[in-house]
Amino acid sequence: MSRKILRIDMESESLKFEDLPEDYKYLGGRGLTSQIVADEVPPDCHPLGPNNKLVFAPGIVTGTSAPTSGRISVGAKSPLTGGIKEANAGTSFSQKLARLGIGAIVVEGKPSGAMYKCLKLDKDGVQLVNVEDLSGIGLYDAFAELRSEYGEGLGVCGAGIAAELSGANSGIAFNDTEGMPSRYAGRGGLGAVMATRGLKFILVDDEGAEGVEIEDEGVFERGRKKLTDALTEHDVTKPGGALNSYGTSVLVNIINEAGALPQKNFSRGSDDRSAKVSGEKKSEEIKKRGGERPHRCSPGCVIGCSEVWTREDGGDPVGVLEYESAWALGPNCEIYDLDTIGELNRQCNDLGMDTIEAGNTIAVAMEGGVKKFGDEDGALELMEEIRNGTPLGKILVNGTEFAGKAFGVTRIPTVKGQAIPAYDPRAIKGIGTTYATTPMGADHTAGYAIAPEIMGVGGEEDPLSPEKAELSRNLQYSTAVIDTTGHCLFTAFAVLDIPEGLEGMVEEVNGVLGTDLTVDDIPEIGKGVIETEREFNKKAGFTRQDDRLPEFMREEELPPHNDVFDVPEEELDRVFGDLG
Amino acid sequence: MSRKILRIDMESESLKFEDLPEDYKYLGGRGLTSQIVADEVPPDCHPLGPNNKLVFAPGIVTGTSAPTSGRISVGAKSPLTGGIKEANAGTSFSQKLARLGIGAIVVEGKPSGAMYKCLKLDKDGVQLVNVEDLSGIGLYDAFAELRSEYGEGLGVCGAGIAAELSGANSGIAFNDTEGMPSRYAGRGGLGAVMATRGLKFILVDDEGAEGVEIEDEGVFERGRKKLTDALTEHDVTKPGGALNSYGTSVLVNIINEAGALPQKNFSRGSDDRSAKVSGEKKSEEIKKRGGERPHRCSPGCVIGCSEVWTREDGGDPVGVLEYESAWALGPNCEIYDLDTIGELNRQCNDLGMDTIEAGNTIAVAMEGGVKKFGDEDGALELMEEIRNGTPLGKILVNGTEFAGKAFGVTRIPTVKGQAIPAYDPRAIKGIGTTYATTPMGADHTAGYAIAPEIMGVGGEEDPLSPEKAELSRNLQYSTAVIDTTGHCLFTAFAVLDIPEGLEGMVEEVNGVLGTDLTVDDIPEIGKGVIETEREFNKKAGFTRQDDRLPEFMREEELPPHNDVFDVPEEELDRVFGDLG
Repeated sequence: MSRKILRIDMESESLKFEDLPEDYKYLGGRGLTSQIVADEVPPDCHPLGPNNKLVFAPGIVTGTSAPTSGRISVGAKSPLTGGIKEANAGTSFSQKLARLGIGAIVVEGKPSGAMYKCLKLDKDGVQLVNVEDLSGIGLYDAFAELRSEYGEGLGVCGAGIAAELSGANSGIAFNDTEGMPSRYAGRGGLGAVMATRGLKFILVDDEGAEGVEIEDEGVFERGRKKLTDALTEHDVTKPGGALNSYGTSVLVNIINEAGALPQKNFSRGSDDRSAKVSGEKKSEEIKKRGGERPHRCSPGCVIGCSEVWTREDGGDPVGVLEYESAWALGPNCEIYDLDTIGELNRQCNDLGMDTIEAGNTIAVAMEGGVKKFGDEDGALELMEEIRNGTPLGKILVNGTEFAGKAFGVTRIPTVKGQAIPAYDPRAIKGIGTTYATTPMGADHTAGYAIAPEIMGVGGEEDPLSPEKAELSRNLQYSTAVIDTTGHCLFTAFAVLDIPEGLEGMVEEVNGVLGTDLTVDDIPEIGKGVIETEREFNKKAGFTRQDDRLPEFMREEELPPHNDVFDVPEEELDRVFGDLG
Repeated sequence: MSRKILRIDMESESLKFEDLPEDYKYLGGRGLTSQIVADEVPPDCHPLGPNNKLVFAPGIVTGTSAPTSGRISVGAKSPLTGGIKEANAGTSFSQKLARLGIGAIVVEGKPSGAMYKCLKLDKDGVQLVNVEDLSGIGLYDAFAELRSEYGEGLGVCGAGIAAELSGANSGIAFNDTEGMPSRYAGRGGLGAVMATRGLKFILVDDEGAEGVEIEDEGVFERGRKKLTDALTEHDVTKPGGALNSYGTSVLVNIINEAGALPQKNFSRGSDDRSAKVSGEKKSEEIKKRGGERPHRCSPGCVIGCSEVWTREDGGDPVGVLEYESAWALGPNCEIYDLDTIGELNRQCNDLGMDTIEAGNTIAVAMEGGVKKFGDEDGALELMEEIRNGTPLGKILVNGTEFAGKAFGVTRIPTVKGQAIPAYDPRAIKGIGTTYATTPMGADHTAGYAIAPEIMGVGGEEDPLSPEKAELSRNLQYSTAVIDTTGHCLFTAFAVLDIPEGLEGMVEEVNGVLGTDLTVDDIPEIGKGVIETEREFNKKAGFTRQDDRLPEFMREEELPPHNDVFDVPEEELDRVFGDLG
């Protein structure tokens, strides 16, 4: 059984299955969402108008036994950046979708009414059910209600209150293994694209599903074993390794030490108090509280970087508290209390917001005098403003750049309208080169130069050197391929250092698709994905002026290195060539 | 005495006079502000950051006895559009500045503190005085206080509460002949550029000034007479003519009849109730109330299109209630009461906001459910939100596109972020072609195609024909020249139809500058100004995708013509050639 596209017109409420077109046969995940968006969405449309479409796609190997491959890609024209967007999350939802034989869900049309719907999928078919009673309700409760009504084991995806407010900071939440809404395709406002189409939730039941078709089991199995071996060998990804022991927050102390952990809206690169929110400290607390660590975002992950963070008494579990979230809602707001950060993260998950964008928004609001830096209760009050849909909430839910404008702040850390993640580009210039040039807006996951610049993975690079075009380009190409296969980006640590791991990943893909790809094909495939994305952005009006970091980062020195972002414009334009 | 540039660094509070450079010798008004902005402002700077500059320049003949030539141009990088901006107003302020021998004021630098200053100029020199006590006060009171303290006859310019909020809808107010803040360089957020530099007011005293140097009095005088004759002959501009009798609002009935007067956020093109806010009706009311009509915005105007609108009891004079203002704050919000519109206009003047942008913002807020369409008290309450700097006020003060995003509205009538004026481009396509392609963002004054499309001035054109590239281009070139001379755009009605009038205008310029220009030089000079502006915008990241009307105007038919905006993209790109 070959993969299908499920196409849903939310205006007419018509649902139909189509065969995956021949042209899309070798695509999955990001490669597929970006191609469909490029082929079907007019680049000049309003992101929340009737002509935008929302596309969900599991990766090529998602739903198989390939290790650490439970990613779902979501794509559309972004309300936050105005360009093409792919955001992905690790969740069993994706595996279930793939096992039902679904290559992509395309959600299109815009109903004139406001009655929210839930899309239900199982082996027997699909239907839309009214869920208007779940409007205005937090996602923790909504996910619990849906699972209680339709089955605890189902995959759940949903858009929250932030999306109902049409917020440019609204993500799409997916279930974690406890069924909580803590796995996020968070960036770029995709939740609002979903909600404005009248779609609030998707439920997937894969009971009795045929599973993912594998063209050559032998090749697949050989690849699976090679990649699994690499992941369990590499220091970063192995059991008991850095990610498994401390999660992504292992980076807090490392990046703070490197002078690149942004404090107080990107005004300093380190602060001794950062240690209070480190992965080591968090791991210790989780043990005391009876949370979980290590933990997996989806079945079949051999890294296990996740966790379940709880309140001090072990109650009100949040799900994972990632490095990015802990930083954005923490040091960037001069907040150094893990419980406050956990509560802020829980609010983001519950409201349906990206934590990176939300933390940056709060920091900019603090710079604009709305609250004081370090005001923990004040930050939590801002979340209530969003929940209540007040005018202040409507400012905040639209993200960092929007809030900066409302509050008269000119130090706004965004690229293409999207907030910058937890590595200050003035102290680590390869990641800054990625922020500037990825079609996605500031996004560390688009070409994770931290690996060679800080971790010594995939080579070693001086973080302060401004010659990073080639590094960023290569990483962006290979990332686009990983995002297409459905593997977690963290598999990159192993495959960058262990050639057999990379071979294994390619063999898994060959096994599933019946192709004869080699590792040498990777750059060309990645290039194809990114060119499709950049072409969309160009038609949407992007130029090389959009491939730049904010003015203040080029002019204001960041302590302790006291450096500015000095990668020359020519170097940035050399990443992909000039858009004109 | 040749003209000087007065350069003010607001960070160091240093003031200095420079000779007008040789390159700028033949420039004035818009030609000069745009050239200085292009030469001195980095196109990628933050409009409210330290690298933007604000430039004031009287026109070439401003301050002489040339008829209807009291315009002041203000230029900067716009916080509203992100591109170059020139907005101009008619006011004695400009004439006084010119008579002091000042070709331009350049305001630069950004102080770290927030102590607002007033710049005082007279024949003996300049100084900055603290006016922190005038912060947070409405401009009617502030202008009155300044004139009471420093002299009733002074020219006054100021930025209001909207500018103090860093609002992208904040204009710069200039005194009318009563000393009220009713003459506005309103569009594009120039007030915020002024206020973020710490400058709140400018006072100009021209007592004892040497006056504008005229190279050849005979040539000037010949030109002045020809232009005056043309203006007093032409039906639109003559005493007792359309503008003199009814002001700009004479257009209400005409454009409503043409099906192009936007109602209810651009959802219909006519409504019988529009007659209640027509120029004829207003003129009648002014007579009853003891306001003034006709009236001049500045001494030496032979058209006299202005007026003083008051409350029913003759109190609380507003100043002029223009067609654009009456429409934006009226029919576009489904408000058809002149007293409410007058009060809304008074609030805009008092807060320091552009009425076109403000009316569109209110209409979009109404579409977003913040108030109901037609809610007169509700509209006035929104003005109070801005005055009080509430979160809702901070949304509204940032203009139409910003408010649309906050309130989840997708029918947002803007081009380059600036709200569309009172002619629906689906029913009058030449003006739509100008909205799309002018470097200024939607601006009817940039190339007023209404003249031939509706008024039969300067030829006759079918408003529904989509072939308008050449018409718009020619009008935009000639407008750039008029804006450079310092004449009011309304002189165009006479000079488009009466060849001697146009000759007269050129001779005035030759007289002042000692040049030998002919009417044949006009297109080339205008082209030069617009190319400078477009080049700035290109470097700021604009592409041909920015030269487009909003999606909904291309898809949604406008009653009663039931037409969409169907000027092809190729025709729009043909206006100035492709930006790439």
